Amino acid sequence: MRLVTIDDIRSAAEALRGVAVRTPLLRFDDGLMLKPESLQPVGAFKIRGAYHALSRLAPEVRARGVVAYSSGNHAQAVAYAARLFGVPATIVVPDNAPAVKVEATRAHGAEVVQVPMAQREQRAYELVEERGATLVPPFDHPDVIAGQGTIGLEVVADLPDVEVVLVPVSGGGLISGVATAVKALRPSAKVVGVEPELAADAAASLHAGELVRWPAANRERTIADGLRAQPSELTFAHIREYVDDIVTVSEAEIAAAVGRLARQARLVVEPSGAVTTAAYLKAPTAKTVAVISGGNVDPEVFAALT
Amino acid sequence: MRLVTIDDIRSAAEALRGVAVRTPLLRFDDGLMLKPESLQPVGAFKIRGAYHALSRLAPEVRARGVVAYSSGNHAQAVAYAARLFGVPATIVVPDNAPAVKVEATRAHGAEVVQVPMAQREQRAYELVEERGATLVPPFDHPDVIAGQGTIGLEVVADLPDVEVVLVPVSGGGLISGVATAVKALRPSAKVVGVEPELAADAAASLHAGELVRWPAANRERTIADGLRAQPSELTFAHIREYVDDIVTVSEAEIAAAVGRLARQARLVVEPSGAVTTAAYLKAPTAKTVAVISGGNVDPEVFAALT
Repeated sequence: MRLVTIDDIRSAAEALRGVAVRTPLLRFDDGLMLKPESLQPVGAFKIRGAYHALSRLAPEVRARGVVAYSSGNHAQAVAYAARLFGVPATIVVPDNAPAVKVEATRAHGAEVVQVPMAQREQRAYELVEERGATLVPPFDHPDVIAGQGTIGLEVVADLPDVEVVLVPVSGGGLISGVATAVKALRPSAKVVGVEPELAADAAASLHAGELVRWPAANRERTIADGLRAQPSELTFAHIREYVDDIVTVSEAEIAAAVGRLARQARLVVEPSGAVTTAAYLKAPTAKTVAVISGGNVDPEVFAALT
Repeated sequence: MRLVTIDDIRSAAEALRGVAVRTPLLRFDDGLMLKPESLQPVGAFKIRGAYHALSRLAPEVRARGVVAYSSGNHAQAVAYAARLFGVPATIVVPDNAPAVKVEATRAHGAEVVQVPMAQREQRAYELVEERGATLVPPFDHPDVIAGQGTIGLEVVADLPDVEVVLVPVSGGGLISGVATAVKALRPSAKVVGVEPELAADAAASLHAGELVRWPAANRERTIADGLRAQPSELTFAHIREYVDDIVTVSEAEIAAAVGRLARQARLVVEPSGAVTTAAYLKAPTAKTVAVISGGNVDPEVFAALT
């Protein structure tokens, strides 16, 4: 299996210039710097992978439009990127998706198709067939991984003597890209994934040396709603190659980290984005960077955590 | 009166490299970009002016320490800057200052002296006499103004065709520096100050063409607790020279802007920092930058506004 390379990531960084925010590292305390991807357009790192994937399509292919199935940050990112390219986006969401997320996706100019949860994937593939559109997967694609990897380039550029990089793990696209970049530029730095205890399938997989599947019902218990997916063969291959460890945090630790980030770093962070800070607070290390993956949290949930 | 120059501000930018965060411009909507100074160390732009002022002291003078009287962001900034230089800082705060702010100042390594509100200034000058320390004023000093002006340099560098820059006004140090930089580099851009209606003494002064004083009891009515000071002769001279207008926003508009910034920009912003977004939302303009001055807000106040 061909893994993404540092050259792929450098090329993605060129494509993303002026589109993704060059997020600064923010000092949290003596040991920790934050990489606040919550400040990206659409409020999450997902814009990097989605925009890069669209940029790699041939213009005549891209013009036929793109499709994504997601109710979360990836959908918004695909919609936002499609608008920048002036091509149609269709987002398939479950019919029980919160109205606020559906509205946000429409606000980016995308067509929203609501179907029962179990039919999402199938309906997305039908749309691809019917329209000649291109599916943009949330993590299982080299162009998406390379886009997310630009975060790793920036981390090492801004903190050349970084020792630990903490990255949230869900489907594994983010950590695959970041780990590829960090290990290429600063091999001695550790790249450590963080998962909720309640959705720790990637940690189990890394420790087992093979993909371990958890039932969706188990993974859906965590408040970190962006971390319920599972790695693919492609992302797991990157994780095995480049990731030093995957650690877990409890629901209470995640909640406490959301509050600390609001008060001490003045950031609105979603629970999924706070897991890396939670891991640091549990076991602080020097010269550490926590990737804050996103900031899309329901105001009521946020208020309850802060 | 000698006004601060663009060269003073460029020199300040050199001094601040690696100390102040190079805050990015964040897209809020089609017309507005945010300059989130809430992401600075100590949570406010004040670190720029305070650190630059300390950097300009002769080493043997600086070694005798610095003094500030403030219970707000300036005190934290002086304490933080003094720690970076390894010199003592003494902060005089009113004896009714919130415990949380006193603790935060101590956490930066400063000595905190609590006195009755009316004796703050006098006690600060006594400390200067007794210890040979240097007073770092919150706005009434060219080095402080030049430090704040580095925000204007960054705004024009990141958005060369900026048309409107919105800046909160209290003592006027921030807008004096920003307006000096913006008018030097992009003379056609408008620099517009924003004040709460309940503390609109600078707007009244600009419109009258001379400093108009409002009683402190009036200015203290606004929730924007960082905007209760009044311009000095020095800052007002900059405002008359470079600022196009000063507009006002209501308490309800400020509160609504805090909520919008949390949800739409994922930023924890204090009411004083939200006045510029409030002004934009009231009367949107194209290619506009709102300086978000700070993010130090009591969690209870923030929760009530979001």
